[in-house]
Order: sequence, then structure tokens, then C-alpha cells
Amino acid sequence: METVSTNRAFGGVQGVYKHASAACGTDMTFSVYVPPHEAGAKLPVVWYLSGLTCTHANVTDKGEYRRLCAELGLIFVAPDTSPRGEGVADDPDGAYDFGLGAGFYVDATQAPFAQHYRMLSYVTQDLPALIAAEFPAADMTRQSIMGHSMGGHGALTIGLTFPDRYKAVSAFAPIVAPSQVPWGHKALGGYLGEDRAVWRKHDAVALIEDGARVADLLVDQGDADNFLAEQLKPHLLEQACAAAGIPLTLRLQPGYDHSYYCISTFMGDHLRWHAERLMRDG
Amino acid sequence: METVSTNRAFGGVQGVYKHASAACGTDMTFSVYVPPHEAGAKLPVVWYLSGLTCTHANVTDKGEYRRLCAELGLIFVAPDTSPRGEGVADDPDGAYDFGLGAGFYVDATQAPFAQHYRMLSYVTQDLPALIAAEFPAADMTRQSIMGHSMGGHGALTIGLTFPDRYKAVSAFAPIVAPSQVPWGHKALGGYLGEDRAVWRKHDAVALIEDGARVADLLVDQGDADNFLAEQLKPHLLEQACAAAGIPLTLRLQPGYDHSYYCISTFMGDHLRWHAERLMRDG
Repeated sequence: METVSTNRAFGGVQGVYKHASAACGTDMTFSVYVPPHEAGAKLPVVWYLSGLTCTHANVTDKGEYRRLCAELGLIFVAPDTSPRGEGVADDPDGAYDFGLGAGFYVDATQAPFAQHYRMLSYVTQDLPALIAAEFPAADMTRQSIMGHSMGGHGALTIGLTFPDRYKAVSAFAPIVAPSQVPWGHKALGGYLGEDRAVWRKHDAVALIEDGARVADLLVDQGDADNFLAEQLKPHLLEQACAAAGIPLTLRLQPGYDHSYYCISTFMGDHLRWHAERLMRDG
Repeated sequence: METVSTNRAFGGVQGVYKHASAACGTDMTFSVYVPPHEAGAKLPVVWYLSGLTCTHANVTDKGEYRRLCAELGLIFVAPDTSPRGEGVADDPDGAYDFGLGAGFYVDATQAPFAQHYRMLSYVTQDLPALIAAEFPAADMTRQSIMGHSMGGHGALTIGLTFPDRYKAVSAFAPIVAPSQVPWGHKALGGYLGEDRAVWRKHDAVALIEDGARVADLLVDQGDADNFLAEQLKPHLLEQACAAAGIPLTLRLQPGYDHSYYCISTFMGDHLRWHAERLMRDG
């Protein structure tokens, strides 16, 4: 692991790091905030998965998470959203919603993406192993996951797939049912092929319909979000959770859009919600 | 005034706007955060002056001021750091510390800069008049000023020059004595010429030596700031304030550098400090 930068912030250290990812076969950059803590302390780890077009930098710059992570004693990890670099396939038209910056947190099976686009393995195996090895304060028995938009899709699907590993799961403006919306059709089709049974393992609503369960979920969604009606469709998650008996706190936030202005406003609520669940077993 | 963007954040509105500045003779872009408030309420106005290379966007993205401005009921205004656009002179070598992004909050008298580089008039006359006209919630009888680095220089010098107008003055890592450091030599010489008596009106330490007074000052300075020894020299402000009897709270923050990680960490303390002073007369 190579240190790109470290900066003191809110009494802790905001770092940006780079490593050679075995899962993706590329170098990957990510950020980690380690709050102030006593020597030898073990702190829970919150994963934040970013949305389309983002890198680790967007939430690191604009997420306003450090103050509360320092107060609550949470490590905050922000991975990139796709493999990058020479030889990494991109959308043939350079679109923003597929390819670079748009890995959708799946392991691609379709050429030419299968070679590097293995963001599910990266986020659930490769990077956690690195964090465990390189950040001695990280308590990998207490992890939680949140994300925004495409990263909200990632957080929900990964949280539903590994309910024992992630003690809390939440999302800002998530894509809740990629199988039913244009962004998801393009991404899941492009990365996984046209067998829709395969898609269901990477679709939060379908996972719940197929029996996946978590203790509860928190979702904030701006009602002035341009993507709400066509791509996000939170009512589909609401229906699935109601049918499955999963307690979902879905908050429609009046006047908020899809931006980091919304995320930063509600970040504190999410971190507190995560901390409550992460500290229960601590 | 043209609205570039507005986004709901922390219950208020973060806006970015553009207007034709009479002072600078160019279009200028700035940001204003208006916190949630009751119809007809009048709210104090905090000015934030940015440092070298910045625009309004740096603090707007990374300053983490909105949460507390919402809590405390403060309007937050962030101007640009220089005129920009076609026909605006720049440093002949394109250096970062003079010309574009480096207006130093003075009214230039030297060609070719005198034509557009009138940031002192812009920040103290032009933009306040626009804010008063366009933002009915702004109470222009209750203003305060803060800034970072070159903007800390701006906040201190403007605060010292107009002590009745700004009810609170604070800075993050300010250039306290531009007459005594390389950044200042280049900027004050380039904009104002070589008469050092003129420089003294734009140098916080010299202003205090020459009799300018404010009720008190708050300065946060990271001790791991690369510019500390050569450009910032906070001990010169400490000496001047001690000699003048100005209560200065100068906090050397261990491990902090010159970045927005430092600013965002201590922004809350500064906003509370401003609010106390702005609300006294309210």
C-alpha cells in the first residue's frame, strides 16, 4: 500500500492510499479516515460506496463525515467506483453510466469487462483484507455499509448478501431495483449478460423478494431528485420491505436533490444510526 | 444577478450566483448560503475570504459551514479571489501567487492590474450592495468577516479598516504581515507599487502598529503548515496585538496543515465565535 496523502482533520487522520488490487488487476485508490483514538483501541469500520462518475474524492471532499466519525469513533472507508488505468475497458461511447466510474459493485462476467470490473470482490474481499492488514485500529468484526445512488445500490445489495458481516446498512438516494430501471438494464446487461436470474443477486428489491433479510434499513431520498421517478423508485423498496417484514425508515426529504448537498445534510443521521448498531455488539 | 445553481442543504439554500461587478469591470461569481429562517427574519452575514488559487467553490465544497450556519442562523457569503475573464491581466509567468486567483483584497494602482484588480472595493462595497439588494434576509447592520491564508490577510486588514462594520474578525492560517514575507512583497509591490507606506494600509500587523483596533481576534494556525515559517509568521500578529492591547486568541493546532482539512475542523469554533459577537447587538 502506498500513501498518497495524509491530513490531520478533526483530531484524526484523513488518508488517501493506493494499492495493487488482485481482484481488479489494477491499481486502486481509496480514502480512509481514522478518528482520534487511544493506542490499541479497535474501532468499527463504515464503508461508503460512491455513485456514478465519482471516485473516493467526492465524499472525502464533500461528505462532511469526519466530525461525527471523530465524535463516534468510526473508521470511514471510501473506495473508488470502478477499476481505472491503461487497458481497462470503458463504455464504447464514453457514457457516464457504464464503464469507468460506473462499476455497479458486481463481478462482471462479460467480455471485455470481466477482466478488470470485479468491484464486488474488490469491495467485499480485496480491500477489507488490506484494511485489516494495514489499519491496526480497524475492528473487522464490526463493519457497516452505506452508499449513494449507484453506491446505495451497492450498499443495499452487499448488505443483504452478507447480513452477518455488516451490522448496519443505509443509503442516500439508492438505485433500489436496477433490474427495473434504465441505468440498471445497461449496467447489469453489460457486465452480467442478459440472464435476468443472475441480475436478481445484484438487485436489492429482488434479493428481498428472494428471501434476503437484514435487521433494518435507513434510506434518505430527496423529493427534488431528478433521477427519482425514472432510476431510483424508492417505493419499490418500500413495497418489498413491507412484504418481507424488514423495518425500513424511508425519509422523503423535501426540496433535496441528488447532490452531496443532500448527502452531507443527512450524513450525521446515518453515522449515528450506524454507530448505534455497531456499538451494540462492541 | 444571475443564479448559477441552488441546492437545498441543511434546511437552507446554498446558491451560486454571478453578476457584473462595477468595481472590477468583470463578471464575478460568488456563493451565498441562506439558512432556514422564518419569513421576514433578518440574519447576520458572515463573509469568508478565500486563499490563493481558490474560487468561491473551495469553501463551498469543503468548508463544512452549512450545518452550523443553519443552527446559528447565519448567512455565509464566499466571493472569488480575483477578477477573471477575457482582458484580465495575469502574472506574466502564470504563477499561483499573483494575478488570477490572487487578488490580495486590495485596489491595484499599478498597470496593467489597476483596471480590474479592485478586490477591496469589490468585497467591501460592490458585493455588499448586491447582497443587501438581492437577499432580503441579510441584515447588513450585522456583518462579520473571516478568511484563510491570503483571505485571512483580507479578513484581518478589512476588519481592522472597518471595525464598526464587522462585529467579528477571525482567520485560519492568515498572512499577518505581507510587508514582511515573499508572497506579500510580490503582491503588494505588483498591485500597489514600491511605496511601502501604502503597503501598511494592507498589512494587519502594520495597521495595528499604526493604531487600528478591533475588540478581539481569533486565529487558528496549524503547526504542520508548510507556509508557517516563511509566509504566515503568526508571532508577528501576536507581538502587535500584545503591544496594542488587542485580545488575540491564537491557537497553534498540532499536526494540522494549510488545507481545508484544517479549516473544516475549526470552522465550527469560528462560526460560534462570530455568532456570539453578531448576536450581542441583535
